Amino acid sequence: MKLQLANYLNRYASFNSEEIELIFDSLSQKVFQKKEFLLEQHQLCKERFFIIEGLVRHYRTDPDGNENISLFGIENWWITNLDSFVNEVPSSNAIQAVEKTNVLSISKTELEILYCKVPKLERTFRLITEKTLIAIQRKDEIYMKQSSKERYDSLVDQIPNFAQRVPQYMIASYLDITPEYLSEIRKNR
Amino acid sequence: MKLQLANYLNRYASFNSEEIELIFDSLSQKVFQKKEFLLEQHQLCKERFFIIEGLVRHYRTDPDGNENISLFGIENWWITNLDSFVNEVPSSNAIQAVEKTNVLSISKTELEILYCKVPKLERTFRLITEKTLIAIQRKDEIYMKQSSKERYDSLVDQIPNFAQRVPQYMIASYLDITPEYLSEIRKNR
Repeated sequence: MKLQLANYLNRYASFNSEEIELIFDSLSQKVFQKKEFLLEQHQLCKERFFIIEGLVRHYRTDPDGNENISLFGIENWWITNLDSFVNEVPSSNAIQAVEKTNVLSISKTELEILYCKVPKLERTFRLITEKTLIAIQRKDEIYMKQSSKERYDSLVDQIPNFAQRVPQYMIASYLDITPEYLSEIRKNR
Repeated sequence: MKLQLANYLNRYASFNSEEIELIFDSLSQKVFQKKEFLLEQHQLCKERFFIIEGLVRHYRTDPDGNENISLFGIENWWITNLDSFVNEVPSSNAIQAVEKTNVLSISKTELEILYCKVPKLERTFRLITEKTLIAIQRKDEIYMKQSSKERYDSLVDQIPNFAQRVPQYMIASYLDITPEYLSEIRKNR
């Protein structure tokens, strides 16, 4: 687990073993069973989660009871509701395990302390945040110009075994298409 | 201009005067006349722009010739096409001056050098990127739940004199509503 974290962090900056120890010691290991919530909607998001193994969804339920999935998180991915975590406001979204999921979690206070102790972590989180921002902008633009089929194809090609790991109704919600239409797309693929 | 930049940067971290000098010396002053392009669509975005005075729009023209405005940038705001700047791919969007606009611009290489010389800048850009990410996520969610009128109200309330500074057809494009419908909303406001 520590090795996986070290490999991940070293993609962004060169961390020595002492720094890795410091970071690892500030993280808590947690296991969430399938359908368990890492964060409930309207709660304060007090943690950032690094996914060691598993798959989660970040989604909101609207007043009519419809679910809107905005993000999926997989292995080697940080997930949180950033607005709630940064601005200390209730989270507009829930985060729920789609599979049994092992994470390393860190609180805001612990992370602030770490930024001071290990300044390379500022760089790492700057780069991670840039990457997430680019992904969201690309998603917004892809939505604006691609057909439902193209959206489905690019999604399942991005994440290994994605179509096997995630229920179809969730993929339909993420792609903003009906489950019936998704079923058509899959048949013709 | 240097004072404006210093005041802005000191919101994010405490920079001493030597650090401010270093940062300021790495920036180039540029003036763009109304309708002039800071960046053309499909070009490589080689700079990040800090707006000293003025207003710009970040938008893409689709194959049918329709303009989609994704962001506006105003005073004390950094603007770029992040995907193009970070990943060195052609920009999917243009950035154009809506008013005569004065900026301070920085190249990728200069910024990388500055990150090393002034590590507090890593923190600053981590926080700025988080803020932008939160703004985009909020926009996506607001779009999903608010009426056109509520979207218009929150936009014009956010930026001083926004409705006077920006042509109505651009506001309609940003809000994804027709200019005719926007005109109705304004009459009833």
